[in-house]
Amino acid sequence: MSLADSVLNGDRLALARVLTQIENDTPDGRAALDLLFPRTGKAHLIGVTGAPGTGKSSLVNRLALHFRTQNKRVAIVAVDPSSPFTGGAVLGDRVRMKDLSGDNGVFIRSMASRGSLGGLAQATAGMVQVFDAAGYDVIMIETVGAGQSEVDIARLAHTTLVVEAPGLGDDIQAIKAGILEIADILVVNKADRPGVENTEKALKSMLELAHPTQRVYSHHGKYMSVALPIEANTDMWIPPIVKTIATEGNGIPELAEQISKHAEHLRISGDWAARERARLESEMETALQEKLMSQFRERVPQVRYDEIMRQVFERNLSPGEAVKLLTNGRTK
Amino acid sequence: MSLADSVLNGDRLALARVLTQIENDTPDGRAALDLLFPRTGKAHLIGVTGAPGTGKSSLVNRLALHFRTQNKRVAIVAVDPSSPFTGGAVLGDRVRMKDLSGDNGVFIRSMASRGSLGGLAQATAGMVQVFDAAGYDVIMIETVGAGQSEVDIARLAHTTLVVEAPGLGDDIQAIKAGILEIADILVVNKADRPGVENTEKALKSMLELAHPTQRVYSHHGKYMSVALPIEANTDMWIPPIVKTIATEGNGIPELAEQISKHAEHLRISGDWAARERARLESEMETALQEKLMSQFRERVPQVRYDEIMRQVFERNLSPGEAVKLLTNGRTK
Repeated sequence: MSLADSVLNGDRLALARVLTQIENDTPDGRAALDLLFPRTGKAHLIGVTGAPGTGKSSLVNRLALHFRTQNKRVAIVAVDPSSPFTGGAVLGDRVRMKDLSGDNGVFIRSMASRGSLGGLAQATAGMVQVFDAAGYDVIMIETVGAGQSEVDIARLAHTTLVVEAPGLGDDIQAIKAGILEIADILVVNKADRPGVENTEKALKSMLELAHPTQRVYSHHGKYMSVALPIEANTDMWIPPIVKTIATEGNGIPELAEQISKHAEHLRISGDWAARERARLESEMETALQEKLMSQFRERVPQVRYDEIMRQVFERNLSPGEAVKLLTNGRTK
Repeated sequence: MSLADSVLNGDRLALARVLTQIENDTPDGRAALDLLFPRTGKAHLIGVTGAPGTGKSSLVNRLALHFRTQNKRVAIVAVDPSSPFTGGAVLGDRVRMKDLSGDNGVFIRSMASRGSLGGLAQATAGMVQVFDAAGYDVIMIETVGAGQSEVDIARLAHTTLVVEAPGLGDDIQAIKAGILEIADILVVNKADRPGVENTEKALKSMLELAHPTQRVYSHHGKYMSVALPIEANTDMWIPPIVKTIATEGNGIPELAEQISKHAEHLRISGDWAARERARLESEMETALQEKLMSQFRERVPQVRYDEIMRQVFERNLSPGEAVKLLTNGRTK
């Protein structure tokens, strides 16, 4: 029996082994992915992103426990490439063990690798497919939300939660304007802390900028503001703001409710299929780029590449001219 | 006379036109770059990055004025892809006009394009080369410092300043751990604000984590801490922390002094050449990837690509298998 078959049969050890192969991008890992891919497409992928200190991990933990009460199988992929100082990924596992270990319906995987961020996004995509094929109903992808690459990782998801917490200052909001745009649901965690009203207010005003609910029309030379009929438009999803206290479980059922509403919205509006396609297209593009580059490396001898690079360093050839030289002769 | 020749002759209008061509990635722009490239390699490229609200733009402005007193020609490329809300790039120009307009030794260019971030980094690299060829001694590249792509843009530089300001909260520091790693010089701007000591202290402790100045040795079974002989090691650059009040010009000469010390360090240690090579290598890789992809598009008919993609959407083919099919037959 192949490793992929063992994964499909619910063998957790085989699952762990395949995940490692994919993290290390081995030929065996790629082969397993090819075998498992036809079984994917059923899971609900939930991205959870937020700054350090927002309590993301506790939130993910609690959500997992909640989904378990609904008898859903839950996988968690924790991605934290930005913490050379804290080694957060490893620590995270240990904290979680307490609540979720021993439950066969839960599988937690931290990405401890310190490779390139692009590789990280690709490895995460592969892991998510393995969990999906293995029959996990909900897959949560947790990222720190500090950079573009983590946004890319979050983009794997059907539903993206952006987690905030009171007391992180106003400027942090400004920085995260880009991340707010990918939010399907906004979570204000640590909602028992002072300043929760300010955080909520700031998020609301940013949401209004991003999703205007009123439009100004000119009518006989006079301008009038008209509320947009949001309810009538099922294609439009206004990200709700949900307050939680993850450490105590407060607000978790409400959050889970919004997550399932969003999934429903995606299916009704056709966005579920659209997101699947966009994800597969970008995955194809990455794989294609990689393949074309490796074919190029096979075709063009390293000495020739180095010689051309030397001329670029000496500014005798521009990078554009160098690329033309290297790609015109197809075989060498 | 070609546009590129006009640029080399100091024609500002021609310069502006070439910059636009490069921003739009036109064939004329690429041709101009090929012609100008042999004249590059003289300018000092300074990256300036920091969160919104740190006063980056005023700082860049003041530095430009300072370099002008040393009779250096200064170019500024302001990159702000993250501000769909504020349109910061355009506003920035207007504010700057007041101090620097009418000075032929200064050229300011904002990137107003809203294209892909990858394209932005490439366009910025091209613009920097044009300024370099046109004889600008100092080129400052200003980015918001919120994401990986902006870090990539900052990586173009020989010397990278990371700008902080008091009162942005502790958590923001944690987020920016990754950005701190690229800092050659740390600037605490708005140094007349309360909390400046805390900001400085936080930066110092992060620096100590990143660049240990003490090492613990075991000696006859006892551990002893020994200060590393930094002064003796010319290869090591510990990022200095410089306090400024940009709006009043305070600390600007000290900052300029550190910038020129860093340039000297780069030349003595050989890192100047190393950074140039790394930059050109990554530029080559991007150009090569683009070219290989466009050759692929010419080779493989769109209908075939769409048909294979359809099979991926239907999960009959994995992305890996699809790429194999598409790249095995070289001509179609």
